[in-house]
Amino acid sequence: MNLLLLEPAEVSAEGEAVLSGDRARHLREVLRAQPGSVVRAGIVDGAIGTARVVSLDGDRARLACSIEGSPPPRPAVDLLLALPRPKVLKRALAQLAALGVGTVALTNASRVERFYFDSHVLEGEGIRALLLEGLAQARDTRLPRVHVRRALKPLVEDELDALFGDARRLLADPVYPRSVIEAVRVRPSRVVLALGPEGGWTPYERDLLEQNGFAGVGLGARTLRSDTAAIALVALAHEALRAP
Amino acid sequence: MNLLLLEPAEVSAEGEAVLSGDRARHLREVLRAQPGSVVRAGIVDGAIGTARVVSLDGDRARLACSIEGSPPPRPAVDLLLALPRPKVLKRALAQLAALGVGTVALTNASRVERFYFDSHVLEGEGIRALLLEGLAQARDTRLPRVHVRRALKPLVEDELDALFGDARRLLADPVYPRSVIEAVRVRPSRVVLALGPEGGWTPYERDLLEQNGFAGVGLGARTLRSDTAAIALVALAHEALRAP
Repeated sequence: MNLLLLEPAEVSAEGEAVLSGDRARHLREVLRAQPGSVVRAGIVDGAIGTARVVSLDGDRARLACSIEGSPPPRPAVDLLLALPRPKVLKRALAQLAALGVGTVALTNASRVERFYFDSHVLEGEGIRALLLEGLAQARDTRLPRVHVRRALKPLVEDELDALFGDARRLLADPVYPRSVIEAVRVRPSRVVLALGPEGGWTPYERDLLEQNGFAGVGLGARTLRSDTAAIALVALAHEALRAP
Repeated sequence: MNLLLLEPAEVSAEGEAVLSGDRARHLREVLRAQPGSVVRAGIVDGAIGTARVVSLDGDRARLACSIEGSPPPRPAVDLLLALPRPKVLKRALAQLAALGVGTVALTNASRVERFYFDSHVLEGEGIRALLLEGLAQARDTRLPRVHVRRALKPLVEDELDALFGDARRLLADPVYPRSVIEAVRVRPSRVVLALGPEGGWTPYERDLLEQNGFAGVGLGARTLRSDTAAIALVALAHEALRAP
């Protein structure tokens, strides 16, 4: 945990916050904080500053926060990701939040097993907790927006503009020879990457995405697990978006 | 498992192999192979071809292999990686083998905890099993060479040429503004990336690496876990090595 993340409602108008549970334990046991210690802290989707430990008793920490200014910019890379199996999804979410993604649409596809949608990761606070773990790691506060869709076609035909605005649309699949960097010669403001299941998109799905503005890119011939491919693609998209 | 990997000694001169254990179970239960089924198969560090299932009884599979030709090329990206904590190392090895690395030197560094070297992952067949998992995923046979070194200085001062030849040397740390792609304008034949612990290389370690030919590159300001950073860097290095 390189940034202590606080929910907006946890911090009073005077900047006081009282924590219990995991974060208080982490302060005491990992960061070895004591009264007077100052740690980097941020508000979820808000600004970054510091928190001074006022008291730390048992599982309860009282903090005086000094957090002002603007939130960091929202990462400019989005994902449209065929839902991976639960174990891989769990690994991917924290890493993607750490690497920096703005919006993630998790979607069905022909080669996605139906039971993946029953994963407890998709329930309640599961996704949010993993994203916060990644943000705390990377010292970011911008919670990726995650949407879950059980049908690809309406998502692609009706929702792309609302979810991804004018992001440059790229479709990742081993059938395409061009790399992300080659496909993005004129630098756009945002990029959205559509990444299929481990078995790939079907030809029908590739057509659907191509007809809706996605240009094909590949990572070479190797078959990668969804989390590995997603991390590699997001890293390449960030590189493509760098100011020259 | 997208490629059935066989050890050279497992295949007779006539191309017959008898498997038991995990691979036989995977053939039966996941690939639902039956006598007559043909699967993609490769020899560790050798060529790729096919294997026909002759019989499949209980936990024992008898195969007739047809594997000829040259092994795939060795991936042109190497890593000099400060040893991550065991859980992260375990995650990283299979993913790196899948993404394609030639040689990985796991090394000590000032911010590496000593007990990481006691991990059972480093013992016996632990590393090899994880690498084979990644190769089987990516359909490669080229087992990355892994070396473990408990001291950084002699590794950097005496072993670089032997381990990495004339690979272009890059040193990853958040202090450096240039990206991997920017640093590799003239395409080398190989790249070796030196990636520090999560807390970064110390100034002394950066000096040592710079004095031995490593040029600094960064991935931006975000603090990433070793496995996430390694995957992102290896993906960028492969991109930098692509034929124009």
